[in-house]
Amino acid sequence: MVDSWAEGDAVCLIAPREAPRIVRLARGPQRVGGDSVLDLTEQIGRPVGGEVPWLGATYRAVRPSLSDLLTTLHRGAQIVTAKDAAQILLLAGVAPGGRVAEAGSGSGALTLVLASAVGPGGHVLSCDRRPEFLENARSNVARAGWGDRVEFRRRDVALEGWGEDGFTSVVLDLAEPWQVVTHAEKALVPGGIFLAYLPTINQTAELRGALERSAFAMAETFEILRRTWHIEGRSVRPDHRMVAHTGFITHARLLAA
Amino acid sequence: MVDSWAEGDAVCLIAPREAPRIVRLARGPQRVGGDSVLDLTEQIGRPVGGEVPWLGATYRAVRPSLSDLLTTLHRGAQIVTAKDAAQILLLAGVAPGGRVAEAGSGSGALTLVLASAVGPGGHVLSCDRRPEFLENARSNVARAGWGDRVEFRRRDVALEGWGEDGFTSVVLDLAEPWQVVTHAEKALVPGGIFLAYLPTINQTAELRGALERSAFAMAETFEILRRTWHIEGRSVRPDHRMVAHTGFITHARLLAA
Amino acid sequence: MVDSWAEGDAVCLIAPREAPRIVRLARGPQRVGGDSVLDLTEQIGRPVGGEVPWLGATYRAVRPSLSDLLTTLHRGAQIVTAKDAAQILLLAGVAPGGRVAEAGSGSGALTLVLASAVGPGGHVLSCDRRPEFLENARSNVARAGWGDRVEFRRRDVALEGWGEDGFTSVVLDLAEPWQVVTHAEKALVPGGIFLAYLPTINQTAELRGALERSAFAMAETFEILRRTWHIEGRSVRPDHRMVAHTGFITHARLLAA
Amino acid sequence: MVDSWAEGDAVCLIAPREAPRIVRLARGPQRVGGDSVLDLTEQIGRPVGGEVPWLGATYRAVRPSLSDLLTTLHRGAQIVTAKDAAQILLLAGVAPGGRVAEAGSGSGALTLVLASAVGPGGHVLSCDRRPEFLENARSNVARAGWGDRVEFRRRDVALEGWGEDGFTSVVLDLAEPWQVVTHAEKALVPGGIFLAYLPTINQTAELRGALERSAFAMAETFEILRRTWHIEGRSVRPDHRMVAHTGFITHARLLAA
Repeated sequence: MVDSWAEGDAVCLIAPREAPRIVRLARGPQRVGGDSVLDLTEQIGRPVGGEVPWLGATYRAVRPSLSDLLTTLHRGAQIVTAKDAAQILLLAGVAPGGRVAEAGSGSGALTLVLASAVGPGGHVLSCDRRPEFLENARSNVARAGWGDRVEFRRRDVALEGWGEDGFTSVVLDLAEPWQVVTHAEKALVPGGIFLAYLPTINQTAELRGALERSAFAMAETFEILRRTWHIEGRSVRPDHRMVAHTGFITHARLLAA
Repeated sequence: MVDSWAEGDAVCLIAPREAPRIVRLARGPQRVGGDSVLDLTEQIGRPVGGEVPWLGATYRAVRPSLSDLLTTLHRGAQIVTAKDAAQILLLAGVAPGGRVAEAGSGSGALTLVLASAVGPGGHVLSCDRRPEFLENARSNVARAGWGDRVEFRRRDVALEGWGEDGFTSVVLDLAEPWQVVTHAEKALVPGGIFLAYLPTINQTAELRGALERSAFAMAETFEILRRTWHIEGRSVRPDHRMVAHTGFITHARLLAA
Repeated sequence: MVDSWAEGDAVCLIAPREAPRIVRLARGPQRVGGDSVLDLTEQIGRPVGGEVPWLGATYRAVRPSLSDLLTTLHRGAQIVTAKDAAQILLLAGVAPGGRVAEAGSGSGALTLVLASAVGPGGHVLSCDRRPEFLENARSNVARAGWGDRVEFRRRDVALEGWGEDGFTSVVLDLAEPWQVVTHAEKALVPGGIFLAYLPTINQTAELRGALERSAFAMAETFEILRRTWHIEGRSVRPDHRMVAHTGFITHARLLAA
Repeated sequence: MVDSWAEGDAVCLIAPREAPRIVRLARGPQRVGGDSVLDLTEQIGRPVGGEVPWLGATYRAVRPSLSDLLTTLHRGAQIVTAKDAAQILLLAGVAPGGRVAEAGSGSGALTLVLASAVGPGGHVLSCDRRPEFLENARSNVARAGWGDRVEFRRRDVALEGWGEDGFTSVVLDLAEPWQVVTHAEKALVPGGIFLAYLPTINQTAELRGALERSAFAMAETFEILRRTWHIEGRSVRPDHRMVAHTGFITHARLLAA
């Protein structure tokens, strides 16, 4: 079975020593980046993975991975990094067919990761009280073609909760997640997972206090560090600089009824 | 829609300050751990999340998350840790519906993670040349109920490759992954991802050399560190000890035809 | 000029794959550790570095380094680790001939490090309000032969300060160093350095607030991580476990008059 | 006893939110940095720590600490960082009165640190085969006023050794320190410490192999990571970026005769 390009597909162009680029497959020339013009018309119907000469180089046109999508996101907010997103998925127990409640939507980076992981049979309810963030997140998810598994809702979860229940996980990228703890107790199934991502340790300590007084148990907080290596011939060493901090991840599990 | 227990389900028993335990839901008393006897018969047909009194404590019976499954694995080999498994999924682009080739099967820990992520519509081909490892991995995957999306095959991938192609990712937990690079070139779709997990930096440097001479590009090597925090009232600090090393993750992308 | 052993010298016995041991050079057999008996009499007058057969092995008798002294300390309190002690010396500007004020004395580990660094021409004033800690610290410093460059004083520095001035550095290993900030302003020369070592980030944040409202400027807080490597033939990798946290180091400089 | 400025002293000018600057105390105006002119004449004879109005700000004139000297070094080579220099001092057992052999001199950063630590009664022999590095290192040490405790010698230590013995430590910042292992065996006293600082893990593994076949024992390799914190009011978190790698430190002890 050959995988072929269709109009409207998201195409990822890759080449050595270049950042990946994602464009929509359309008929006729399109403007990409600043002034560059690209015409992918002849790819339509061809097998995925073909060569595309452009700007003096040869790119390969492939389907974007989740990592490509994250790298090329339209940013509207500080985005969660891939190293953290990966841990969030695993620890929040987000798997194909899962039902996840998110607040806030932010740039849609985390929404994108959740939508990828729940798959076509899953459901993500993503709430934010700021319409411009909702719009940006919605467009980032639509670009990946996963609009039908995500519902965006304008809603202040701190005040009103999600207005639904039966979720297997709640994932929070909010400044004051302690305001959402009691709403999360109602929204989750028993054994369901609460997870929050926070930039400072003060916020994290305040959240841990709120969880201590809640129906959640088994709380844990950690940070993830990613150290890349330079490996070229006889020169093998860590790279000289790294990201030292993005956020603290706290997760807990709904235990009491 | 209420989620209810059926005979044969995997049940995860959780309680504060206890490690999760996974048991099969069966009629009649069953031996668990050493000498303890547990009878879950009356849970059959009841809603997921109910209380189970046992050994003087009250447990809650919930569906196991991937994290629970990893924690309670029957071990037959050094297992990949959750912090690394999570990164491997994201960087190898493993998503619902994906087709992934794995070598070797090891304890089945990584197979389990891959099987969870590809979901019911996906496919994992997991090869190992050691029958005892295959058997152990198969049993760990079956316990999670994901046997139908994983094919185990006894095969020395270094010599013969996987014998199939069209994979979106290959994931290697082998001592000499450089022997598999040319097989991986054939097994992957264009833009497909090669990922290997290795304990030492020597092996990693040798692999990077082999990738340098291959059709793969955009190679990167990194390690993931996870630092947990102690947060209790006025005492907020990192925990005193941590895992300093598990493995080096190297990934690259199939670029040339 | 040959360096020879004299009665009363501190002797460090080292052997491969053994922790160093420090004993006092005395005439006649002495009890070491539990039941072992060691007789070093014949070393007196011999050159430093000779062999000592003991307990079926061959040890070498050398002068102890600061690192040996720290490793073999009589413990009376949580001790500062070598990785932190080293940074403290450099950042507190402790150098030969320096005048350093310390509070509290604790186990004397930090006192020992300071005494080593100021050398025979320097001076350390170490205060603690707990007599048993003072006694222990004094004995650890005496064992190294540096008693004449350290003055121990029973004194609650939080209430009374050090009662002296003209110090080039103050070094604090106290639970509430913010109580000492105004005393430190008086004790230090212009440009003098304030340094505190604290186990939690809450204490550290409270101290930084107090420094903000003081005559100190250029405040900085950091932590030091030390990662050891396993290097044996073809197996080159970080060790599997490490110390993840000891303390936060905060330093600042007296700027205003 | 008041500490007063004399002509020729090294003066460190500090102010909030400025990097420290070191100038020589001279009569008459002097050019500093690019075009700025500074006249410190009237400080001569005044107490250390006074105010100096300059460029619209008020600086305080203090004696430079070792840390100030390192920060303001004339660079001729990649310099050892303060976090590593501090560990090197402690682990190489460099203390007041010590005798240390160094190769190569490099920028003189490490020489400066060693010279500070051995104090006026100590001795550092620093060899390099490149005259321009020797000259630069010599000038950096002279600026600190420690020229009389350091001997610089043009010499290829890999070929000829140091040409002296009785050292308590050898400290190496050379690309191929394994060539120096047998020279170090002869240069050190029994129990003396060998320490090398290397940028890559390959070099480090090669050195460890050479030490394995030598009279040195108790070899250990580690790296030091320094993570700074951002602490401002309610925002307490690690800084976003950090130095991920500078070098690997390997040390061992002369055991066999």
